[in-house]
Amino acid sequence: MSDARQMLDSYPRSVNVDAGVLAAAIDAISDCAQACTADTDADLSEQNLAEMAKCIRLCLDCTDVCTATGGVISRLAEYDPGATRPLLEACVVICKSCGDECKRHAHYEHCRVCEQACRRCERACQELLDALK
Amino acid sequence: MSDARQMLDSYPRSVNVDAGVLAAAIDAISDCAQACTADTDADLSEQNLAEMAKCIRLCLDCTDVCTATGGVISRLAEYDPGATRPLLEACVVICKSCGDECKRHAHYEHCRVCEQACRRCERACQELLDALK
Amino acid sequence: MSDARQMLDSYPRSVNVDAGVLAAAIDAISDCAQACTADTDADLSEQNLAEMAKCIRLCLDCTDVCTATGGVISRLAEYDPGATRPLLEACVVICKSCGDECKRHAHYEHCRVCEQACRRCERACQELLDALK
Amino acid sequence: MSDARQMLDSYPRSVNVDAGVLAAAIDAISDCAQACTADTDADLSEQNLAEMAKCIRLCLDCTDVCTATGGVISRLAEYDPGATRPLLEACVVICKSCGDECKRHAHYEHCRVCEQACRRCERACQELLDALK
Repeated sequence: MSDARQMLDSYPRSVNVDAGVLAAAIDAISDCAQACTADTDADLSEQNLAEMAKCIRLCLDCTDVCTATGGVISRLAEYDPGATRPLLEACVVICKSCGDECKRHAHYEHCRVCEQACRRCERACQELLDALK
Repeated sequence: MSDARQMLDSYPRSVNVDAGVLAAAIDAISDCAQACTADTDADLSEQNLAEMAKCIRLCLDCTDVCTATGGVISRLAEYDPGATRPLLEACVVICKSCGDECKRHAHYEHCRVCEQACRRCERACQELLDALK
Repeated sequence: MSDARQMLDSYPRSVNVDAGVLAAAIDAISDCAQACTADTDADLSEQNLAEMAKCIRLCLDCTDVCTATGGVISRLAEYDPGATRPLLEACVVICKSCGDECKRHAHYEHCRVCEQACRRCERACQELLDALK
Repeated sequence: MSDARQMLDSYPRSVNVDAGVLAAAIDAISDCAQACTADTDADLSEQNLAEMAKCIRLCLDCTDVCTATGGVISRLAEYDPGATRPLLEACVVICKSCGDECKRHAHYEHCRVCEQACRRCERACQELLDALK
């Protein structure tokens, strides 16, 4: 069981969303932020750096949005749908954009691994959005 | 002239949004994130802590969303409206919620200052959203 | 194999530190930042909030320092010992302080889980510091 | 008067460091994080991208360390010298390294502006370190 799930199961207040879906999103967001940070640096080490600039920017965006989203969805008791929903939507979109760009460079193993992390995060955030409906 | 405006004026590529509106948003976001971080800690020092919990959570959310938004709108060349617009919308909403909650505690000078920073940030992000239309 | 290890194994440049030690630190830092963010919110939901204020502050510090340290040690190619070593030292200290404070509240399952994440992170950062010697 | 100073002047507890020195550090750190984020993106838009990779990495490091340091020194009431001092030292070092690298590219106005922000931040953090002695 992941730390995120353990933390949710010991939360002092009740949460009105499925704990499994929420924990999965928190974990996927954390993995994606980490993968994008690592991929940014790996991209910067490639020879054809000019071709990697878009991938670097999207990885930086994805790290920033994932970090914010992971924080906000960890603060459950004052859940504000007006902010949480567009934030999750932004996270889904940036994960898709970043995953698509990483796929273009999937001949680099680091971009292939990062693409997979982005795809998992996109799915987990979409599932959380659906669960919040 | 703020650093943000100086940086924009020396940007190597052209930006398809008014530089003044963009720089104002970057500055307001940075100020708001800082004010919310400080207000979180000031709230934690108040006697009636139970009444401040909501304010603390909203300040933490606001810091996280402002930090991500400031990063994303600083990376102009690969501007992705599908992610940037909902992110800015989330920032407008959380600044409004946080500002409203701070207003409830405006007898504390630190909440009054934080409310003002949230209001300025809300306006600046809304103006950037309008400019991006 | 964790994403962090997969990313390191596909890094375009050689890294002059054991990849297992580095990946373990990156993973432990990410887990700790997430646990501290969740524990901050769980603490805010407890009845005896005044007794939790120190724990909340240390969790916030720990999240911030872990996030920065995880970013810096993911950017290997321009490793700057003058900054990386004190940063890792700060991370070791704050993880110990936060873990100690969480232990005082270990009757709350969320603080017990967070303590364990802090201890693992403290050890992993110390091992990386030793490996960088 | 900056928001940081106004927040400090309304802080509910007494702070055992000069408020002017602390507020100056908080402001300089916030400006530096913002300048480095903007400079990262400006660097990514330059033609000779391979020559900018080191500058980009150092700007990313500087943003991360500044963000963490700004958070930690804003949480005054549980000031932990064992973590705060090495963190400030890391911030001084990374600001110097990043400023030096930006200076090498000071023919780009964006790197010149970023260098100045790094220098101000380095000085302000050093002054805070001295004041904490």
